[in-house]
Amino acid sequence: MSDIEMIRAARARIAGNLRRTPLLSAPALDAIAGRRVLLKAECLQVTGSFKARGGWSAVSAIAPEVRARGVIAFSSGNHAQGVAHAAREHGVPAVILMPQDAPKAKIDGTRALGAEVVLFDRERDDRDAMGAALAEERGLTLIKPFDDALVVAGQGTLGLELAEQANEHGVTSAEVLVCCGGGGLSSGVALALEAEAPGLRVRTCEPEGFDDVARSLAAGEIRRNDRLSGSICDAIVTPQPGNLTFPILRRLCGPGLAVSEDEVLRAMALAFRHLRVVIEPGGAVSLAAALFRPEALTGETAIAVATGGNVDAALYARALSTLE
Amino acid sequence: MSDIEMIRAARARIAGNLRRTPLLSAPALDAIAGRRVLLKAECLQVTGSFKARGGWSAVSAIAPEVRARGVIAFSSGNHAQGVAHAAREHGVPAVILMPQDAPKAKIDGTRALGAEVVLFDRERDDRDAMGAALAEERGLTLIKPFDDALVVAGQGTLGLELAEQANEHGVTSAEVLVCCGGGGLSSGVALALEAEAPGLRVRTCEPEGFDDVARSLAAGEIRRNDRLSGSICDAIVTPQPGNLTFPILRRLCGPGLAVSEDEVLRAMALAFRHLRVVIEPGGAVSLAAALFRPEALTGETAIAVATGGNVDAALYARALSTLE
Repeated sequence: MSDIEMIRAARARIAGNLRRTPLLSAPALDAIAGRRVLLKAECLQVTGSFKARGGWSAVSAIAPEVRARGVIAFSSGNHAQGVAHAAREHGVPAVILMPQDAPKAKIDGTRALGAEVVLFDRERDDRDAMGAALAEERGLTLIKPFDDALVVAGQGTLGLELAEQANEHGVTSAEVLVCCGGGGLSSGVALALEAEAPGLRVRTCEPEGFDDVARSLAAGEIRRNDRLSGSICDAIVTPQPGNLTFPILRRLCGPGLAVSEDEVLRAMALAFRHLRVVIEPGGAVSLAAALFRPEALTGETAIAVATGGNVDAALYARALSTLE
Repeated sequence: MSDIEMIRAARARIAGNLRRTPLLSAPALDAIAGRRVLLKAECLQVTGSFKARGGWSAVSAIAPEVRARGVIAFSSGNHAQGVAHAAREHGVPAVILMPQDAPKAKIDGTRALGAEVVLFDRERDDRDAMGAALAEERGLTLIKPFDDALVVAGQGTLGLELAEQANEHGVTSAEVLVCCGGGGLSSGVALALEAEAPGLRVRTCEPEGFDDVARSLAAGEIRRNDRLSGSICDAIVTPQPGNLTFPILRRLCGPGLAVSEDEVLRAMALAFRHLRVVIEPGGAVSLAAALFRPEALTGETAIAVATGGNVDAALYARALSTLE
């Protein structure tokens, strides 16, 4: 089980290897939201998402003689790059299983980080069996995307940074809006804030129609999504909250929020214009909630975590077309 | 005349009011450039450009009883917002004269910062006479865009930051590529680096066809541009280097660089994909030089200053269309 000591230990392993991402703001966004909005620009993290934190935390914690044989992960996107980056920096091999219809940019990006990409057919192949066979054959260690205590601890390092930065900005009370898939980041940040900034409370944010976490929090037990495809926020669409993460979310987070795809695209465009950072759809759900769900929030300040910035140019251009 | 003591004094006045912008990098950009590339993401500065530094430096140095009457500036873009921001934060009025054909986003942005925008017709009106009359009538202090010692000192604070950040990254020797219009930023940064990081040398960067600074440096005396319109890099197109800035540039900078508009658009797109920051054309000239002029550079590391990020969505979409 993850706890604050694991998060602090992860931070010590990460120190000097990843970025402390900035906390940004713009008067125009405050005006839209009707309250102060601070954006934790984690899209500027190495590899373009917070997944570099969890990847580093997990890879760096493996015993060196085991790690030397390599690591393996399943991912079509940000987790792939986070694990590949950590493996490369540790000088060990990474094998990433990706669906063959994954965006070319993400496959290329993962290969550019030195990983061996093994493509599978979503219809024909048994991904888990392929991964298990590879791991067995080569002695690879599996790095899970969120339901792993070391991964949660790595994502929690964002919360430690945020606690410091909120303090630097004079913020002692705020809701922290976190884009939420399986809950690895949300639960890690919630644990960090519980210890270091108890006036800051996590609210999970999801796309409408894929709000398994919000419904699970409301029900007090895990609920599944009816469907897993058809969202522009694919980076944060997962079947259900994790078995490890959900109890943490239930204990520490406020009610979940959900926003529409149109609101996500507008949030991306407003971040382009007023903050000059590139946010991917799954990473802009939090900013969309800060801007367009004022009635669901409380307090003078909302902190939105922009979790990633890996977005295809065509989809980004579509977001920009929402500007006047 | 600006000097390192003026820059240090400007930094003390600015401290806590503006951002320390991050130094970013990506393996994919290093691979294109054939050397290590570090990007000083000044596009993430308050108001979206380094002009916030010079504006703050100048406005904060005016005697309070004079400052209370207000300030005035001529600008179609970033300088307007820099001065407007500094005036608002000091609680004094700002009048900005803007051409009536300036982009609506920039006029709106300047107004959103609380400035009174006075529009003039480029053909019919005498801008200088209008400004002089307004300044006389209201007792406003004129803030010039670059040929002013306090403004140069403010821009030089970027150089002090960069010296610290280069040291943190273990870089003691590098060429520092700076997008150059009138030379306020280039000269201020050059002065700061001369004192704090003498192994770092400024190289000015301009669009082809508007390379007055490069030609002036080559000639050893001021040369003018033949034309002043028709560049997508409008933010850095000026008639000629400043009388105050040019002697500093001549003493401290290496030969000037010039890049094509196509290279600028490609650099913007590569920053989108690999660094997730939005850079405007005039702010991407430096990154374009780092990526596409390897033969004109020396050493293992190039540091490119991305000076601004205020770009219209349509032009940005055009830049993104250069990606594969």
